[in-house]
Amino acid sequence: MDLMNVPLKDYDNIPTATVEAVALSEETSSEAIYEALREGTVVVMGSPDGPAKPIGIGAGLCTKVNANIGTSPDFSSLESELHKLEVAVAAGADAVMDLSTGGDLDAIRKQIRDACPVAMGTVPIYQVIAELDDDADIGDISAEDMLAVVEKHAADGIDFLTLHCGVTRQSVAALETDRRICSIVSRGGSMLAKWMELTGRENPLYEYYDRVLDICLEHGTAISLGDGLRPGAISDASDAAQMAELIVLGELVVRARQAGVQVFVEGPGHMPLDQIAPNVILQKRMTHGAPFYVLGPLTTDIAPGYDHITGAIGGAICAAAGADFLCYVTPAEHLGLPEDQDVWDGVIASRIAAHSADIVKGVSGAQDWDDSMSAARARLDWDAMRRLAIDPGRLIAVRGTRGSLDAEACSMCGRFCSMKVKLHSSSDK
Amino acid sequence: MDLMNVPLKDYDNIPTATVEAVALSEETSSEAIYEALREGTVVVMGSPDGPAKPIGIGAGLCTKVNANIGTSPDFSSLESELHKLEVAVAAGADAVMDLSTGGDLDAIRKQIRDACPVAMGTVPIYQVIAELDDDADIGDISAEDMLAVVEKHAADGIDFLTLHCGVTRQSVAALETDRRICSIVSRGGSMLAKWMELTGRENPLYEYYDRVLDICLEHGTAISLGDGLRPGAISDASDAAQMAELIVLGELVVRARQAGVQVFVEGPGHMPLDQIAPNVILQKRMTHGAPFYVLGPLTTDIAPGYDHITGAIGGAICAAAGADFLCYVTPAEHLGLPEDQDVWDGVIASRIAAHSADIVKGVSGAQDWDDSMSAARARLDWDAMRRLAIDPGRLIAVRGTRGSLDAEACSMCGRFCSMKVKLHSSSDK
Repeated sequence: MDLMNVPLKDYDNIPTATVEAVALSEETSSEAIYEALREGTVVVMGSPDGPAKPIGIGAGLCTKVNANIGTSPDFSSLESELHKLEVAVAAGADAVMDLSTGGDLDAIRKQIRDACPVAMGTVPIYQVIAELDDDADIGDISAEDMLAVVEKHAADGIDFLTLHCGVTRQSVAALETDRRICSIVSRGGSMLAKWMELTGRENPLYEYYDRVLDICLEHGTAISLGDGLRPGAISDASDAAQMAELIVLGELVVRARQAGVQVFVEGPGHMPLDQIAPNVILQKRMTHGAPFYVLGPLTTDIAPGYDHITGAIGGAICAAAGADFLCYVTPAEHLGLPEDQDVWDGVIASRIAAHSADIVKGVSGAQDWDDSMSAARARLDWDAMRRLAIDPGRLIAVRGTRGSLDAEACSMCGRFCSMKVKLHSSSDK
Repeated sequence: MDLMNVPLKDYDNIPTATVEAVALSEETSSEAIYEALREGTVVVMGSPDGPAKPIGIGAGLCTKVNANIGTSPDFSSLESELHKLEVAVAAGADAVMDLSTGGDLDAIRKQIRDACPVAMGTVPIYQVIAELDDDADIGDISAEDMLAVVEKHAADGIDFLTLHCGVTRQSVAALETDRRICSIVSRGGSMLAKWMELTGRENPLYEYYDRVLDICLEHGTAISLGDGLRPGAISDASDAAQMAELIVLGELVVRARQAGVQVFVEGPGHMPLDQIAPNVILQKRMTHGAPFYVLGPLTTDIAPGYDHITGAIGGAICAAAGADFLCYVTPAEHLGLPEDQDVWDGVIASRIAAHSADIVKGVSGAQDWDDSMSAARARLDWDAMRRLAIDPGRLIAVRGTRGSLDAEACSMCGRFCSMKVKLHSSSDK
């Protein structure tokens, strides 16, 4: 593994102030962050000078949460998406991806970039597909069309680009021998696979990866290697196609490091609970310790309308096993474009998962937060509980609608509250 | 461990029809259920003749979910609780506990029993405390008072009683040497500890456990050994008091089996994610394979208002590691008495956790449900997705408010839906 840890060529494209800000917020040293950057186990994005607040993602750091927003062909209001951005950031999202596929995509992306105070990502291939003329075919797209959109997003100051470079002719071929229930569930992955089938050519994001790296190096853009062949059903997890793509992603991580481009790697998807930790170990090994950005994983397929909960279950286990960055899943997943409340609920659920993991990862300060909350509970200090709650507004709303006659306790137990029973033999810490 | 597997004396108090019904619903044989009953690794409750539908809980069976309802000193409406019962059962709860502490407790319990179509549990000690005269002290309660209420609940046909028999002078003493942030958070546990402190006597539910067993044997009531010293804060998990109580519970499991009384054991509580699986292994070992009924566990303390999510994270991990019965946690936990929507959300969240675990436990039919859903997704069969969803009404509600212009797809991806991209090389299973 050490042999593969090729140092970044230089840090010219990473502001010193960013590294210092990340070190400060993570309660570590700049030296430790630089060392992790050299090893490729951490990426940093943003700048104290804006627009995005500095953020570090990777081993040893607090688990981060991303919220996806963006228009769709059916709902293409920029105002709605700008409002979702505000909701996501207010709920505590550490990063936001604009996945817009409807409306004036260049304008939407630029306005979201202007308004977004946190690290921002996009998926350029979505724009390529969305802007295809009605009478054109996916096969009419040229490799240059794809690279041009990658360049455009990077030039707009997007912090990280999801690029499905691992959807190669060889990795897609694995779908033939190990058949899935749900084939390809990634929008970008399915489009690239279709393009390859129609043209008979290799995925341009793989074939011209060196040009992609040049673009990203020039603009200081990080690459999030997409998992276009991620499983989208419990039964499809950890199959040949997923592993074939992971092999390619491992290669591409090394090439990005050699080029001096920061890189992290996306992972599944839908996955049975007992396969999650093994997958993290495998993912980290095969991508040489690159930060792991996970989409879910969802531990069951049968809960549409509640996939923020299935995602929180999987995300907590995944992050505890070493995943560094959780992409939220909203209650609207599999059903429709999320609305404001979905965005809020999705971010909070992912933050609960991330924090549950940070406690066992030993992240600096994580356990202290819980201890402060529990100490406030023990002394029935509702003001402190409110301040410490992950969502103080929600605490007020729930408690407000069902106040107790006993002002000290809550209406669950009222005067029988166990916290009111003081034993001489067990005074609290 | 085998030495401790003392067979039930007889099955006279378990209707054959119940065992047969459980075997049928679990897709196993009556012989297998009888064998598990002999080993004490499964309990069965209910009867085809009513009032409670037959249910089996334990190793090898589908993970079950319990919903707590009941009045409190602040909200003592029977109608409200009967409605919550309906909501809990409609949401799919396998069992319901009446934890009432406000109003006419005998009448409430009997009416809930009459209306409850699933296994029903209670916590007799709550009634003892709730009915204490205003000018009386906890120390004025006699051992006979406690046993009389246990008998009353058993005679009313309650299927299982939570009895905090493990809160002994010795186990409570462990709180002195290994101090907690939150001391005792169990209502029953805190009251019994206070009673012992005031009277200087041993917990009557422990001291007179043989009489408790006689009562339960006579009425065919199962015992759920409560964990009155469960941790109520992440930092308090797996401490001396929890382990001291667990030692006692192991002893009491053996004595219940010797008496021919069915028994299962409750467990924590609040617990860091990485301690959950080790705790299940320890719990099962120390209680000689008794079915494990878990309250949460909550993987963080900082999310009041969202504890159905923290409980689902912990519950899924716990059940996957071997827990058999999940007590739901509602969004109102730590804040107030749950309302109808909280009950619904709590049951669904716990069922998602239980099912996520059943997939990896290899429970008969569990994976098939997911595969059917995923196959419906692959063919964009919304009617089948609705029928297969854990909450069809929720699917309709979410999809209904944001329909797609593309009738086949949903408004997230619309015409870019990956399921609409058909590759020749990867036709679905």
